[in-house]
Amino acid sequence: MTRFVLVAGTTATARIDGISAAGADPNLLPHTPSADAELIEYGRLVRAPEVPVSPTGCPTPAAVTRAVREAVGFETLVVDAGLAKPTGAPTVDVGAKPGRDVREVDPVPTAPGAWVAARDLGRALPDDELVIGETIPGGTTTALGVCRALGVSEVSKTPREDGEAVGITVSSSLPENPLDLKREVIDAAFEASDVAPGEAAYHPELAVRFLGDPVLAVVAGLTAGALESGTEVVLGGGTQMLAAAALLRHAGVAAPLTVAATTYVAADADLSAATEALDCDLVVTDPGFAGRDDALARYAAGEAKEGAGMGGALRLAERAGALGRVADGTLEVMERLIDSHGP
Amino acid sequence: MTRFVLVAGTTATARIDGISAAGADPNLLPHTPSADAELIEYGRLVRAPEVPVSPTGCPTPAAVTRAVREAVGFETLVVDAGLAKPTGAPTVDVGAKPGRDVREVDPVPTAPGAWVAARDLGRALPDDELVIGETIPGGTTTALGVCRALGVSEVSKTPREDGEAVGITVSSSLPENPLDLKREVIDAAFEASDVAPGEAAYHPELAVRFLGDPVLAVVAGLTAGALESGTEVVLGGGTQMLAAAALLRHAGVAAPLTVAATTYVAADADLSAATEALDCDLVVTDPGFAGRDDALARYAAGEAKEGAGMGGALRLAERAGALGRVADGTLEVMERLIDSHGP
Repeated sequence: MTRFVLVAGTTATARIDGISAAGADPNLLPHTPSADAELIEYGRLVRAPEVPVSPTGCPTPAAVTRAVREAVGFETLVVDAGLAKPTGAPTVDVGAKPGRDVREVDPVPTAPGAWVAARDLGRALPDDELVIGETIPGGTTTALGVCRALGVSEVSKTPREDGEAVGITVSSSLPENPLDLKREVIDAAFEASDVAPGEAAYHPELAVRFLGDPVLAVVAGLTAGALESGTEVVLGGGTQMLAAAALLRHAGVAAPLTVAATTYVAADADLSAATEALDCDLVVTDPGFAGRDDALARYAAGEAKEGAGMGGALRLAERAGALGRVADGTLEVMERLIDSHGP
Repeated sequence: MTRFVLVAGTTATARIDGISAAGADPNLLPHTPSADAELIEYGRLVRAPEVPVSPTGCPTPAAVTRAVREAVGFETLVVDAGLAKPTGAPTVDVGAKPGRDVREVDPVPTAPGAWVAARDLGRALPDDELVIGETIPGGTTTALGVCRALGVSEVSKTPREDGEAVGITVSSSLPENPLDLKREVIDAAFEASDVAPGEAAYHPELAVRFLGDPVLAVVAGLTAGALESGTEVVLGGGTQMLAAAALLRHAGVAAPLTVAATTYVAADADLSAATEALDCDLVVTDPGFAGRDDALARYAAGEAKEGAGMGGALRLAERAGALGRVADGTLEVMERLIDSHGP
């Protein structure tokens, strides 16, 4: 049996102007993970106030994951990794609280406890396979922080002049990746923290607490526990799941691990070099949104790209032979949502 | 689409010696609802320490509900109506806290808020039908308190000499129903409270707060909200669901309502008179445990009888033509549990 796990949380880092595209309105940003959870669980909103769409109208990747769920049928589990707003989706508590701004001294004090509780949960789940997704606005910035703290360097799509090739590239939900801003934020985070770049190597608990976010701690803990009990794990996502994989490798977790991403992230970041460096398998799935003249074309134009486990869900759709139904299914999900909640 | 909702909570009333059979060990009692939720959700325990079995080894009704879920396949939702111990099942929070001893002055101060939040949730759920079950040790005692507060009299199986026929009989998970003890507890509860028997008629919020438990408040709220949005509701259970129905009728909710119970509760309490008085439909389903020589024979001997939505789940099994698979399925669920957690 396969279970899809959504790890949902928030940080104040997302409030930094220009960091995140999730949610059309900055005041709605902290509601996005709560809304994504409801969307995957129920196919509609229950407590969240508004459908998460980007400023250009690009539908949330959670709509894609929901469409796959409707086509394929899988069990779900939402883990509260620091939700800031109420959700009507049922959640498991692992003691995580919303992360503070990563430029504060101790932005994620609940990370170590949440990691341990998530590990216990992952170990106890009865499933053969977990497909884990995340939803956290601003998550690629904290993923960058974690990678730099671990000494997993950021690399451009072509290896840098200094020959450093082992690393990750940082993707974005915006068509124009505000990479300079992300680097500045993380530079400031290192200044505030006692951890220097690379100094948290083999100390993932420091990296995720001082430069990261609660979602990464929970994804890593869940995965570690699941792998310990013989459950296979697919990390559905891009940059953030690479950071989670890096945390796991630096925690000494050597078991096989798969990263499942969309083609849109793969076009934005050199996933194959990064997964190879982290000894992970890579599966890239194309949802087939290119050439469409509807809202899904925003994906092909480089927006959103990934999130809410979309890459992992697409992998499940492909395995079930249902990939061809995902595009129409996503539009149906969005239509139902807009009918009941309006944009 | 049908969704099975488990409303799970606790009160200190259950700690009164002799009140409840749930859990073999009094220290494990407050874990029973958490374990029931995990059992229905995962088919195994995740955070709960021990499989809930009665002192005689009678399996928890949650194992029956899980067996039906495995046979029929339905979506589930667990609502936290005052859990006292951690559960690994995902839950929705409606602000309910564990109830205090009903003999205290204000035993369920969170009841009014939880009712309102549950009503909002019930209104927003997307389903065509909810089948609602409950798990709360000692719940029949507080159900008795609620009914007496509302002026819905307790009646014996045959109408009493004074001709009072509109009322409910109070069932028990024990073969010998400690009815005198329950009445004493509720007498003491009325003494501590400002509400006199019958005085909370048409004031269900007083009945459930001063004589009840958080689970009844949440069941009533969820049902009211679901009915408002056109969702059909089946209350799966016996005495406690009659109390919930009484709360709803006293709240002015006049929509059709079905109570689905097991034959074991029906043999213990006059459900047809009670449901008729409350203008509810009654469905009684026989799981076919009579004449067996295994642990399920305890049910036929009058133990457990109902709980964790068992009557509602059986109704779903019958509708799907899967009733014949429930007995073996329940034993399989129990075997798997005992294999992984010991007895």
